[in-house]
Order: sequence, then structure tokens, then C-alpha cells
Amino acid sequence: MIYETDAEKLAVARAEAEKGAAEGGIPIGAALFTSAGVLLGSGHNRRVQDGDAAMHAETNAFHNAGRQRSYRDTVMVTTLSPCWYCSGLVRQFGIGRVVVGDDRNFLGGQDWIAEHGCAVTVVNDPGLITMMAAFIEGNPALWNEDIGEE
Amino acid sequence: MIYETDAEKLAVARAEAEKGAAEGGIPIGAALFTSAGVLLGSGHNRRVQDGDAAMHAETNAFHNAGRQRSYRDTVMVTTLSPCWYCSGLVRQFGIGRVVVGDDRNFLGGQDWIAEHGCAVTVVNDPGLITMMAAFIEGNPALWNEDIGEE
Repeated sequence: MIYETDAEKLAVARAEAEKGAAEGGIPIGAALFTSAGVLLGSGHNRRVQDGDAAMHAETNAFHNAGRQRSYRDTVMVTTLSPCWYCSGLVRQFGIGRVVVGDDRNFLGGQDWIAEHGCAVTVVNDPGLITMMAAFIEGNPALWNEDIGEE
Repeated sequence: MIYETDAEKLAVARAEAEKGAAEGGIPIGAALFTSAGVLLGSGHNRRVQDGDAAMHAETNAFHNAGRQRSYRDTVMVTTLSPCWYCSGLVRQFGIGRVVVGDDRNFLGGQDWIAEHGCAVTVVNDPGLITMMAAFIEGNPALWNEDIGEE
């Protein structure tokens, strides 16, 4: 299957976020595609489910994509603006493009990766914004833990 | 056990790097301590062993440390200068101090995290420098894959 449009790609990330929510976790999802639209891997935040602080949505999608020789021709799609950890991942591995579903509830390093050559597209999907806002309002301590805020 | 000195802390990271080498993996190790010297978790690069591109030494140590409420009072000790991915981890979670065993073979974001308030100590241990240089010389393709160089 080829995920041609950004909307189709974002639907994969959204489904991951919803899966995370259904598991009682933090509802952030991501997926890594080739620029031609082939899905390499998808994932969601696993802090609650696995007690895993290192598995943000983007790093989980990257993990699930397995070893790749190059990321220049890949697209990372994420429901929420990548934090500095996930932005560092994008910069180090030279991921060519990032699609952000929501940068209203959180703003990480998306401008920084853009400065370093990554093409960043911000969608600001109303459904994703509403979902994340509700999660943060209902779970402030868990949310702050996930982004290292005290 | 309390790991009081930087040398004692670095020995834990070095042992992880050596364990990785013995497994046929990339010889980079790391460990996360409280500032009082209590070991929270240690780990090593797992690209070869697990086919896991997301587990650099620092992220594996962070993963193995489990969920923590705050990282301000922690020290990340790593045998090799943290790449942008691992530097982003340090910045996002506000890890207070980083000890770098070797910044001669690779230089990632250590100056950037220092600008953002992390105390960075560079040891440049001759044994670690020699070990990593030999690995890179003998395994250029694997090394380039691990840092996203084409």
C-alpha cells in the first residue's frame, strides 16, 4: 500500500495515538515512510504501557522501522510537534521531511530541524489538537513527566 | 554502592562498551547516575545485537533507568561524545551533567547542551579513544550507519 497524501500518512500516526490512548497511555503516535509513501514503521508513546521513558512516538516509529541505510528520503509523521529528543533524532539521522499534526499543545525543536535542512509541514489538525489538549488537562503530572518538566 | 568519582562512573560506561564489543556490537557504553553517585541504569549501543537503531548507548542507559520524575540531579556518563539524538535527550529531560569519555573520534551536540545549561566534562581517556578509533577504522560502514552518515 502507498500512502500518497499527508492526510493518509497522518491517519497512520493518528491511529497509533488512538491505540496508545486505548492502552491507557499518552496519546501520541508517529510513522516513518519513504518519500514514495511506503510505510517503514509506526509506533506510539510507551511510557505508561512499558514503563519506557525512551519510547516517544517518533523514537518508537524509528525503532519499529528497523535498521535503514539512509533517512534522507524518508518522512516522519507525528501527531505532536517533536520534542528536543525526537528533533535530535531527526537531525542526527538526516530525516528529510517531518509532518506535524499539532504544534499548538507543544512546541519542541521543529524550527531547529528546519534550520538544519529538514522540510517541516505543520497541519494543526483540529481533532488532534482537541485530543491532546484534553489529555494534558486531565493528566498534567504524566504529561510533565513525559517532557521532563518538573 | 556509590560511584563517587568520574573515573568510577566512567568505568561503568566502559564496561558496557566492552560488553557491546564482546557481543559483536558497536563499542559505546553509557550510564546514568544520581549526582550522589547512585547508578540508575547503564547500557550500550544495540544496533547490531537487536537490530535496534534507536538504542544508542545513552538512550539505552536512559531506557534501563526506567521512569524518573526529574533528571536535573542526574549525571549521564558516556564513552563517546553524544550525537544530536542523544544530546536532544539530554536537553529535553534536563539531565544536569554529562561526562564524555572521548570527543576525539566523534563530536555531536556537547557544546549545544552546555549552552543550554548542562555541565559537560570531557575526559578524553586514551584507552577509550584507541578503542573507538580501532572500531571505526575496522567497521566504517557500520559506524556511518549508526550516525546516519551516507
